[in-house]
Amino acid sequence: MTFLGTGTSVGVPVIGCDCAVCRSSDPRNKRLRSSVVYEAGGMSILVDTGPDLRQQALREKLRSIDAVVYTHAHMDHVVGFDELRAFCWHRDEPLPMHATAECMVSLKQMFAWAFSPENRERGYVRPAPHVIDGPIIYQNLTITPLPVLHGAVRTIGFLFEFPQARSLAYIPDVKQIPDETLLRIHGVDVLVIDALRNSPHPTHFSLTDALAVIELVGSSEAYLTHMSHEFDFVELSARLPRGVNVAYDGLKLHL
Amino acid sequence: MTFLGTGTSVGVPVIGCDCAVCRSSDPRNKRLRSSVVYEAGGMSILVDTGPDLRQQALREKLRSIDAVVYTHAHMDHVVGFDELRAFCWHRDEPLPMHATAECMVSLKQMFAWAFSPENRERGYVRPAPHVIDGPIIYQNLTITPLPVLHGAVRTIGFLFEFPQARSLAYIPDVKQIPDETLLRIHGVDVLVIDALRNSPHPTHFSLTDALAVIELVGSSEAYLTHMSHEFDFVELSARLPRGVNVAYDGLKLHL
Repeated sequence: MTFLGTGTSVGVPVIGCDCAVCRSSDPRNKRLRSSVVYEAGGMSILVDTGPDLRQQALREKLRSIDAVVYTHAHMDHVVGFDELRAFCWHRDEPLPMHATAECMVSLKQMFAWAFSPENRERGYVRPAPHVIDGPIIYQNLTITPLPVLHGAVRTIGFLFEFPQARSLAYIPDVKQIPDETLLRIHGVDVLVIDALRNSPHPTHFSLTDALAVIELVGSSEAYLTHMSHEFDFVELSARLPRGVNVAYDGLKLHL
Repeated sequence: MTFLGTGTSVGVPVIGCDCAVCRSSDPRNKRLRSSVVYEAGGMSILVDTGPDLRQQALREKLRSIDAVVYTHAHMDHVVGFDELRAFCWHRDEPLPMHATAECMVSLKQMFAWAFSPENRERGYVRPAPHVIDGPIIYQNLTITPLPVLHGAVRTIGFLFEFPQARSLAYIPDVKQIPDETLLRIHGVDVLVIDALRNSPHPTHFSLTDALAVIELVGSSEAYLTHMSHEFDFVELSARLPRGVNVAYDGLKLHL
């Protein structure tokens, strides 16, 4: 899995900010909006289409994807939808997009032309929408939605399971994890989790929240993501427990 | 005036493309989506909020803007709307946004929460919407809308006039210029005009179209913008008539 972005909704550096992290030249302190691509068995699954999708795709030389799965319809996770054009040009079939019913309504409202039956132009995004109502199966890959609480908008993370690979749960936006989801990810090999900043936030995990959940879940390897400019990569890395890591844009996990 | 971007709706390089321009290391062949910022009399006017606004603002160290003017509501000109947050945090007043009635409807539909009376959070975009019904006046600066034809969506360019500065017309998306607009920009000092590619396009000027209009308008200085990956900066520059230039991202015009 490749981290396309590990930042908050405004990214790091923040426009107009002079803090040490925003001025840092360490590339691991440059955080585009959170997104990952999961690759297994010849399939590439893109999680979310944030505003930086073009930059991310060019950086990672991403040329084709087989499906998009959405966590929720906040701007920093959907607004790069139109960049998917480049991934539709070379396909004969529409591009599968998986989202909760609520998220799909938002996508259809924001990008109505793409979902219109009149959208037959080869140049545009051609979606094959699928409302998530259980695990998403692509050949041997199972992607299980993980409902979480994240403010007013219905939000999910995803559990990726593939034979002979370590399991991975990706939960970039969360304020509270319901018991059912906690049980579902208990013992997952790798946990990627929201850690917005040091102090509590009304809709996101703080660092303290993230560390508590990592311990509760019992993963041997964990990565923090969706981080603000409060966190310097080196400084934060030095004060994390064993097995907990700061993710950064471009980081690749071999599962 | 600074060119924030000079590219088409997919930018250059194009995701997945191996052509010589997309592989070029010449920074003048890297084209983010078309946008400019016009500065005069201590005012900064942003034209459009495309998907690359954050990158563009960081590159140009843009820290504050006084107003946004929109050409039209195609994705490549509006979808970076939410990046305006960073320009609202330090303002006491909402940010003025000027758009045609049709464009404003689209903005309100896509970014409904920002225009909602319940939007009182300091962290979000706080717009002061103004429907364009004639010249926009900011102190000594006059910004005149220039209606043009550009496919199905109602589109405008802008004429910037400021005392002791050369006048400039900016028309990034156009298939046909109505006579009334042609008369309005006749003899403008600097003309910035759509030149998508070599061959005709259903909704954009080709290079031939652009050159014909530049000659008709009679500007002594002209810049091509909204260009695809068909155009190599050096190669195209070499075959343009005197006074006609290829714009590039980051180019600053002193008027």
